[in-house]
Amino acid sequence: MSFPQPFIDPPSVAVVGATEDHAKWGHWLATGALAGADRRQVWLVNRRATQILGHPCYPTVSDLPDAPALVVLCVPPRHVRPVVRDALAKGCRAFLGITAGLGADEEELAAMLSRAGARMIGPNSLGLFNGATNLRLAWGNFRPGDLAIVSQSGQLGSEIAGLGARAGLGVSRFYSVGNQLDLGAVDVLESLVEDEHTTTVALYLEGFADGARIVTALRELRLAGKHALVLATGASEGSRRLARSHTGSMTSALDVVDAACRAAGALRVFTPRELIDSARVLDATPPPSGRRVAIISDSGGQGGIAADIAASQGLLTKVFTDGLQSRLRALLPAAAEVSNPVDLAGAGEADLQMYARVAELVAASGEADSLVISGYLGCYGEDSPSILSAELTVIDRLGRETREGHVPLVVHSMSAASPAVARMGEHRIPTFDTIDAALGALGRAARLGGEPGRDLAITRIATAAPAPGYWTAREFLTAQGIAMPDARRVTDAAECTEACKLLQPPLVLKAGWIEHKSEHEAVRVGLSPDTAAAVFGEMYERLGPGDYVLEEQDTRRGVVELLIGARRDPDFGPTVAVGHGGVQAELWRDVSVELAPVDRRTAAGMLDRLRSRRLLDGWRGEPAVDIEALIDAIVVVSEAIASNTAVEEIEVNPIRVGPRGALAVDALVISRSTAEASGVNGHRETTRKQEEPREHVH
Amino acid sequence: MSFPQPFIDPPSVAVVGATEDHAKWGHWLATGALAGADRRQVWLVNRRATQILGHPCYPTVSDLPDAPALVVLCVPPRHVRPVVRDALAKGCRAFLGITAGLGADEEELAAMLSRAGARMIGPNSLGLFNGATNLRLAWGNFRPGDLAIVSQSGQLGSEIAGLGARAGLGVSRFYSVGNQLDLGAVDVLESLVEDEHTTTVALYLEGFADGARIVTALRELRLAGKHALVLATGASEGSRRLARSHTGSMTSALDVVDAACRAAGALRVFTPRELIDSARVLDATPPPSGRRVAIISDSGGQGGIAADIAASQGLLTKVFTDGLQSRLRALLPAAAEVSNPVDLAGAGEADLQMYARVAELVAASGEADSLVISGYLGCYGEDSPSILSAELTVIDRLGRETREGHVPLVVHSMSAASPAVARMGEHRIPTFDTIDAALGALGRAARLGGEPGRDLAITRIATAAPAPGYWTAREFLTAQGIAMPDARRVTDAAECTEACKLLQPPLVLKAGWIEHKSEHEAVRVGLSPDTAAAVFGEMYERLGPGDYVLEEQDTRRGVVELLIGARRDPDFGPTVAVGHGGVQAELWRDVSVELAPVDRRTAAGMLDRLRSRRLLDGWRGEPAVDIEALIDAIVVVSEAIASNTAVEEIEVNPIRVGPRGALAVDALVISRSTAEASGVNGHRETTRKQEEPREHVH
Repeated sequence: MSFPQPFIDPPSVAVVGATEDHAKWGHWLATGALAGADRRQVWLVNRRATQILGHPCYPTVSDLPDAPALVVLCVPPRHVRPVVRDALAKGCRAFLGITAGLGADEEELAAMLSRAGARMIGPNSLGLFNGATNLRLAWGNFRPGDLAIVSQSGQLGSEIAGLGARAGLGVSRFYSVGNQLDLGAVDVLESLVEDEHTTTVALYLEGFADGARIVTALRELRLAGKHALVLATGASEGSRRLARSHTGSMTSALDVVDAACRAAGALRVFTPRELIDSARVLDATPPPSGRRVAIISDSGGQGGIAADIAASQGLLTKVFTDGLQSRLRALLPAAAEVSNPVDLAGAGEADLQMYARVAELVAASGEADSLVISGYLGCYGEDSPSILSAELTVIDRLGRETREGHVPLVVHSMSAASPAVARMGEHRIPTFDTIDAALGALGRAARLGGEPGRDLAITRIATAAPAPGYWTAREFLTAQGIAMPDARRVTDAAECTEACKLLQPPLVLKAGWIEHKSEHEAVRVGLSPDTAAAVFGEMYERLGPGDYVLEEQDTRRGVVELLIGARRDPDFGPTVAVGHGGVQAELWRDVSVELAPVDRRTAAGMLDRLRSRRLLDGWRGEPAVDIEALIDAIVVVSEAIASNTAVEEIEVNPIRVGPRGALAVDALVISRSTAEASGVNGHRETTRKQEEPREHVH
Repeated sequence: MSFPQPFIDPPSVAVVGATEDHAKWGHWLATGALAGADRRQVWLVNRRATQILGHPCYPTVSDLPDAPALVVLCVPPRHVRPVVRDALAKGCRAFLGITAGLGADEEELAAMLSRAGARMIGPNSLGLFNGATNLRLAWGNFRPGDLAIVSQSGQLGSEIAGLGARAGLGVSRFYSVGNQLDLGAVDVLESLVEDEHTTTVALYLEGFADGARIVTALRELRLAGKHALVLATGASEGSRRLARSHTGSMTSALDVVDAACRAAGALRVFTPRELIDSARVLDATPPPSGRRVAIISDSGGQGGIAADIAASQGLLTKVFTDGLQSRLRALLPAAAEVSNPVDLAGAGEADLQMYARVAELVAASGEADSLVISGYLGCYGEDSPSILSAELTVIDRLGRETREGHVPLVVHSMSAASPAVARMGEHRIPTFDTIDAALGALGRAARLGGEPGRDLAITRIATAAPAPGYWTAREFLTAQGIAMPDARRVTDAAECTEACKLLQPPLVLKAGWIEHKSEHEAVRVGLSPDTAAAVFGEMYERLGPGDYVLEEQDTRRGVVELLIGARRDPDFGPTVAVGHGGVQAELWRDVSVELAPVDRRTAAGMLDRLRSRRLLDGWRGEPAVDIEALIDAIVVVSEAIASNTAVEEIEVNPIRVGPRGALAVDALVISRSTAEASGVNGHRETTRKQEEPREHVH
């Protein structure tokens, strides 16, 4: 479904509710629309005026000489439906709904539009802007540029645009999608993939109801060479509370939003400032291909602070090789430091060219994926005009070097707006007046560089989802390829005795149909063939008949316990998680999540992100564990949920990984029918809430 | 020792090395000095000029009509000693050393000054500034104000001043202390306690050699009603590497610097921007008395982002009580959210007074320790001039309210510089153009509010430091009041047999003089009285005679293992730490550190900061453990190291805390003699390095 042209470049526009009153939205929209009057027919509509802003005004849409291609609704809520009715009758098929507070009227409005095959953005939209077509139908002033802004909150979209403008970033398209009665953020995203004027996309959403489609659209943007920056809330109880009451829907957990962004090759940010700072770097250079940063400063203090902030942003200030250090030492005075950070120790002030020479040496070495110059560069000519031309020469040289050397350079300059800083801008060297901003933006760009997105391709053939119970879960998981200890299903004493002969003690007996086994004393470990029968008798007497499972107990030493889980997110669909297991799992909350399925590379990355990663490499003298087996298990669980829509949840907890092999020693699989029957799955309630009508968003 | 007056308000100044050349330091210093010529005699000295900047110039200091009270040294390194020699002969006794790169000359210079009883700031100083006395002897332009800047790096000091100036914060005093050959940062800090023009102090140090004195000075500043913000590096391997090579000294770990700041009632910050943002809030209001923040916005999106950032800054966006929510609901339209964040949902735009009304209700409720307004306030009049006066009225009302209501207000306004934002400045409402900056600054101020500093008073009488070995460590610790399992020292088989009769099995046998017992199989657990004798025989045969210890084994269940450590920091002296224990202690690095001694309240705070704090309150159905006993143990260990300078290190690991009581089941005490003898203490090498001469700092 292609995006309707009237929202991109309508041949005619009518602003209904246009007014002379500067404090009213109708004024902004009329003024903006008129700015494009050389490109399109603009009509102003107001029941109580014959002329507005020096232009003739029509009382109603019906009175217009022709049907406008786009109707802007800027009238009190109670007038919206009558105006739309008239406009539809006139032949209009595209509406921009600025008016907020329609309440229950929205439903009827949606029906009217749908019957007529008409489309709408809004209501409760702050408007839209298109720089290439000079379509200005929004509150606020926009400067054309290459940043597209798509926002469910008009005010946040406006804040992003404002910060961008102050940083010299203009806007290609701005869509405040408001209550998304018809066209939504995802429709806009899809339309941006082919927009030649857009290089970066800023997206703010309060909910991700169309999650899978959004991921696809973001991924296509990335494949088209554009970068998407996603602003979302949900990192605190306060924002989750607000989002719940605001949209009536439980939003996806932020770690799932992050997983979705990684899969799409997009980057999630916390604030408009982070978004704009990142956009500035991405606007100027491709994201760094790795996390190694070289820091250059004429002050040891500033270099040290830069190293600390770099580390907090996930960047690595790695020690240079001896070779590079020697080359730097040959260039610099004895007091300089050359291991990284490089401290010019006054040599920069003594000879400004030193900044460029050091940057060139480091860039040529291949030992850094990005360069940061922090401190006084940009101020020399400001304080001492006689050396401005020398400073500009250095900046020209740095600009050339980073263009040709392909190592991104970011500058922190103590000056906010000197001629030298302006020259950096001409060279598209992203320059910030604080080291916090410079390294924050560079760190996020490097993260984006390391996460190009991936295909969520399912290679596995779906297996029938299992019936409830541990025995069927075992059958399901082992059929997929998860290793579990040998076991037998036993339903009476004779089967138990027989099983004891076949299995290697010690043994574990589980009442497989009971979910919280420990609470109900439905599991006993450390059984010998002699004791197993008696324990079976006791348990059978207490819990009654059912599928008991007698299982070999994994007694290997030097084993690390993890958990692998898979769930179906209401917005984004199947996800897989791996985390630190054991009794303190909940305390440390050391878990990595990705959209499912994952390939082996992504699974390995999940393990790398765990804070407890080091446990796997041989902890306190233990041998390293079998990480390949663990990766296999993550991949299998991810594909099991992704390939079978009837599987709601899988929990392998714990999976015990030793030097040879990973064994799942307990597991739970909830299938749709199981979930429905037992009511254990919290997702369903969420899904229902998701369908409730949305209220005020602006 | 009082701070020499010539560095505050000298009656006369000579700038040696004054020049017409705008690119040279001598030009800045001459120009600056001359700006104060109406208050003091200013002499310019240059061997090769007779007139500079329209003023007469003297070839040498000896040629001056009188001895200047302060001599500024701005000459090439090789000229410094001859100039100082002449000046001392002339009778000068105060020097400001701008020149850097003196190298080995510094030592001789120090001796010259010392012999003459003269004082110096620098060398390698960027200069000094005093707003009250119009003393301008520094590179850069300073605007008078109430922020004092004391920096070991001139460039960082300059960056702080520059960011402050852009934010409207002026400088009371600026001291770039450079290489601290004589007077150092701590001398300056002490002099600021009584400076009526200083309300906030910015301190940047690369090393804390004078740690204890610095803590005292910072504490006195706080007691005098001033706030100190401490910029320090060391959070990354890169900055630690740089600091080591830079100053030749191992800097204190940053967690110890943080502990020192907490004890002093100062706040450590990461960057100049954090420092200035914090200073702006502290300049306007006292720090919030707690961490509860109320967030008010006209946009749900901005409110949600604010809540997320608040949480990341340690602020609590707590749900308002039903009472307050009802009062807010009565004021606001149905679409508004009132639980906190408050989303005015368009009511702010409809009636600007709503911002003030909501703020007043929340402030009066006592349910928030600070208020944040985020979003459009400050922009209304900018976009629609007709409502500017209404906006200014609201801001006046907010200004009045926060002055009288004593609940600090911080504003994030989407406008950077509107008339309304200027009005906020007049009311001293700290206003930021990003929510990141607003909440970062507020969060840090709240942290400072919660940490008023404390006295490091030792109430315990020193006990003799123990000789090496576990038995003596046990005696030392139990004498201080640390509970340990009952035990006997056994040196032969007969004593072992006798001890078995007196102790409750199971038992533990330790070869007490061996430090890494597990490695050397010098510890055996789970012994019965029957097996103990045989095990003793085997161990004795293998390890030879010594102080063996037979100890009751703590077999309580539901016990949490922690470690308590105490060390003597080379800069700050005695410290105490408590952390998550057990085999994964090193993995999670979950440790709180404070300067020793600590009182019970501080010890409780240390536990509260542990991420594993929840383990103590009853984890997964276990009963809560005896936190009071744990607090007692922390206090005892802290006082044991603080009261006895011969104790270098104490390690109680693990201490097992159950529902009743905390038992230390292994411990190590290293006394000075022990440390010297066994060479186990890494501090000593550090201390030596600390004494090496310092190199280039600027």
